[in-house]
Amino acid sequence: MRHLLESANRNIYPVNPSISEVLGIPTYDTVADIPGPIDLAVIVVPALQVPAVLQGCVQKGVRAAVIISAGFAETGEQGYDLERQIVGIARSGGIRFIGPNCMGHADTSSRLCTLAWSDGITAGPVGVISQSGNYGGQIMRAGMVLGIGFSKFISTGNEADLHLEDYLEYLAQDRDTGVITAYIEGLREGRRFFQIAKRTTIRKPIIVIKAGGTRESARAAMSHSGALSGSDAVCDAAFRQAGVIRAHDDEELCDILTALLNQPLPKNNRIGIFTIGGGLGVMAAQDCEQEGLRVTPLSPSTMEKLNVYLPSRWSHGNPVDTAGMVAANRDLLFSSLLALIEDENMDAVLFLVPMIFNPERLSGSFSLNGKEAVAFQEMQKEKFVMVRERAKECGKPLFVVSSVIDEEASSFLLKEGIPIYHNPRRAAKVLRQLVWYSHYLDSVNW
Amino acid sequence: MRHLLESANRNIYPVNPSISEVLGIPTYDTVADIPGPIDLAVIVVPALQVPAVLQGCVQKGVRAAVIISAGFAETGEQGYDLERQIVGIARSGGIRFIGPNCMGHADTSSRLCTLAWSDGITAGPVGVISQSGNYGGQIMRAGMVLGIGFSKFISTGNEADLHLEDYLEYLAQDRDTGVITAYIEGLREGRRFFQIAKRTTIRKPIIVIKAGGTRESARAAMSHSGALSGSDAVCDAAFRQAGVIRAHDDEELCDILTALLNQPLPKNNRIGIFTIGGGLGVMAAQDCEQEGLRVTPLSPSTMEKLNVYLPSRWSHGNPVDTAGMVAANRDLLFSSLLALIEDENMDAVLFLVPMIFNPERLSGSFSLNGKEAVAFQEMQKEKFVMVRERAKECGKPLFVVSSVIDEEASSFLLKEGIPIYHNPRRAAKVLRQLVWYSHYLDSVNW
Repeated sequence: MRHLLESANRNIYPVNPSISEVLGIPTYDTVADIPGPIDLAVIVVPALQVPAVLQGCVQKGVRAAVIISAGFAETGEQGYDLERQIVGIARSGGIRFIGPNCMGHADTSSRLCTLAWSDGITAGPVGVISQSGNYGGQIMRAGMVLGIGFSKFISTGNEADLHLEDYLEYLAQDRDTGVITAYIEGLREGRRFFQIAKRTTIRKPIIVIKAGGTRESARAAMSHSGALSGSDAVCDAAFRQAGVIRAHDDEELCDILTALLNQPLPKNNRIGIFTIGGGLGVMAAQDCEQEGLRVTPLSPSTMEKLNVYLPSRWSHGNPVDTAGMVAANRDLLFSSLLALIEDENMDAVLFLVPMIFNPERLSGSFSLNGKEAVAFQEMQKEKFVMVRERAKECGKPLFVVSSVIDEEASSFLLKEGIPIYHNPRRAAKVLRQLVWYSHYLDSVNW
Repeated sequence: MRHLLESANRNIYPVNPSISEVLGIPTYDTVADIPGPIDLAVIVVPALQVPAVLQGCVQKGVRAAVIISAGFAETGEQGYDLERQIVGIARSGGIRFIGPNCMGHADTSSRLCTLAWSDGITAGPVGVISQSGNYGGQIMRAGMVLGIGFSKFISTGNEADLHLEDYLEYLAQDRDTGVITAYIEGLREGRRFFQIAKRTTIRKPIIVIKAGGTRESARAAMSHSGALSGSDAVCDAAFRQAGVIRAHDDEELCDILTALLNQPLPKNNRIGIFTIGGGLGVMAAQDCEQEGLRVTPLSPSTMEKLNVYLPSRWSHGNPVDTAGMVAANRDLLFSSLLALIEDENMDAVLFLVPMIFNPERLSGSFSLNGKEAVAFQEMQKEKFVMVRERAKECGKPLFVVSSVIDEEASSFLLKEGIPIYHNPRRAAKVLRQLVWYSHYLDSVNW
């Protein structure tokens, strides 16, 4: 109710025979008592009362509903029968509905939200379809921390009427949605899913998390959403054929989103690594190679440039290890990074660097006074924007990898659309996915 | 210098012919000019000057040094010759040294720190040996965020004199060190390493990160620390035979540490999953199974108890999904969790739950007034301590998995020694490692 009231632009009619008002708004005893037409019914009553309420909606001429109530097919045979009953009422009365056993939905453009969560959802290009209300919420909360905004969210529940495939088809043509994400336990219309996905991914990325891929998790999925998980290997192969990116969990999904929303797709898998510390460069090279990426040799012209910019003990190869030249000269540091970005042997660049923007900590680390620290920070920001622009011109993704990072630096990079990953493995996993998607798009017969 | 001065308990003699004082302390032109004996020389001069300085130390009767200077074997043939030269001087003069090309070392019990970092190191039971100064620092910073303290840290550098194996042998018998960790690019005395490790792991865990396991990362390791990485498969097999836990990176290493330092080792791999939301339970089951853990059926007596405690729509199996009973009754929530912990079919328990302790957010989520929110929070804390104690009595690790967690909740759990992981995969990975180590200890012929 509170959410629905947040947008003043509509009439809300609470229906409840036991109380006279909700949040100051007078209630009606039945749906029939409401004056004028109703566009959407949000049903949150005990399961056994849902058939009667839905029947009332049919008589009132309602055409759409969100049934949040639980206690249907997910609970066993009796619940299953009750679910068939409400589907029957809806079908005969011309009602389409979300749920039951769902958490509701949200549309940030019309500001319609039937969720019970207390925190608002930031508007943006990502659509979320989730066969778990909680997990969908987790995806959105994780995304919002990273500055990602959302267009639509649907907690699909038991999918007694509308299926995940319906929402997918809808988001595929929805102009507010630029990227579609989904948490999937089981597909009720597998073939249809893959047909829609194949048509969609050539212009709009789809990223899914598929759960229930192991024996006990499949059993848990069955008791959670009544979903048949199917063979994980078959699903995986079908995702690949349809150009669907498969993320392991909400963390990897959001990692991919930050890159996909802000950076070009890499043309191939040759990765340039630029590092301030040798050990992290070694780890990053290992992570890249383990993810099937290549840490390719520098071109002769890059070698020449770096021989000029960097102290003689630099690594003379990829990873480019500046051998400790951190504070000394940010000009040369960024010129060296630029040389690596422009290297024709590289398709993407990882920049491994501690990110301290807080002036107080900067003063301590680099022995600067307050004014110098602020100037230093401004200079760093300019340089970052400059290299990001150049990387974009080159059509190459640029990622920062940084485990030592402060609030200021992190919010600056997010605002500027430069993805930050806490360790090279996460960055390498994202690059593997983007390279795969890029190759998929190249291979599609337009 | 600043670090060395932090502990008043010793005399510091800066040596520098070009300036008259450092941080207010008068300098000496040469080591020979210093009055009285010298216990440790910290050498930070350009590489070419190191032989003369070391010679001066020999004449002064110094027996130990930390050579931070870079520009030796890691830079090529000339540097290699220079390194042989300083080893010769040290050997003939009876000096043992750390480095060169290292970041220094730290000992939190004697408060001796030759590192240049500006942030202090919390004292505690974890020893760190690192073939990368930066990466070692990253391990410690990541650990300190999680409340982990450190006994000794050694940045080994080129290991021209003292080898990683020497430090390992030292930490194995060091009473301040309860767990040994190491970042390894290559072992100079592989056989010795495994002999020491095998003797050590039966009473003190060793956790290593081994880098340089792929072609380009091995090349990068060679240019970074001059290390020969060797075959990764051979290393891995040797680690397993010696009971050494191998972590992928600093994140996994710290994840393991939080569990190892605070929780009992699981006897076997049967995991009980307790969740507030169905989707997360499905994901956790999948993660556990993918890591070789088992999500085993509940015992009949646990089923009986949960049928009493939980609403009828609970999952009736493992994962135990409370089906939304969050706010309603924390008493029953924790009683149910306890039933799962006490179940004879479980060796460890994952508790998947949003952790909001901030009173303001609590009020919002559960419609409590300020006073009620504080009482609620206190009650939650008591319950957590109670279940942790019971889990310990049962000899079973208890982990919280929570992506929705606030500062207050997180610092409470860390203080109470209950590990928190942001996603079930990280928790499952830790459990896999602990189960393996537990089985290793069982298999050892005492």
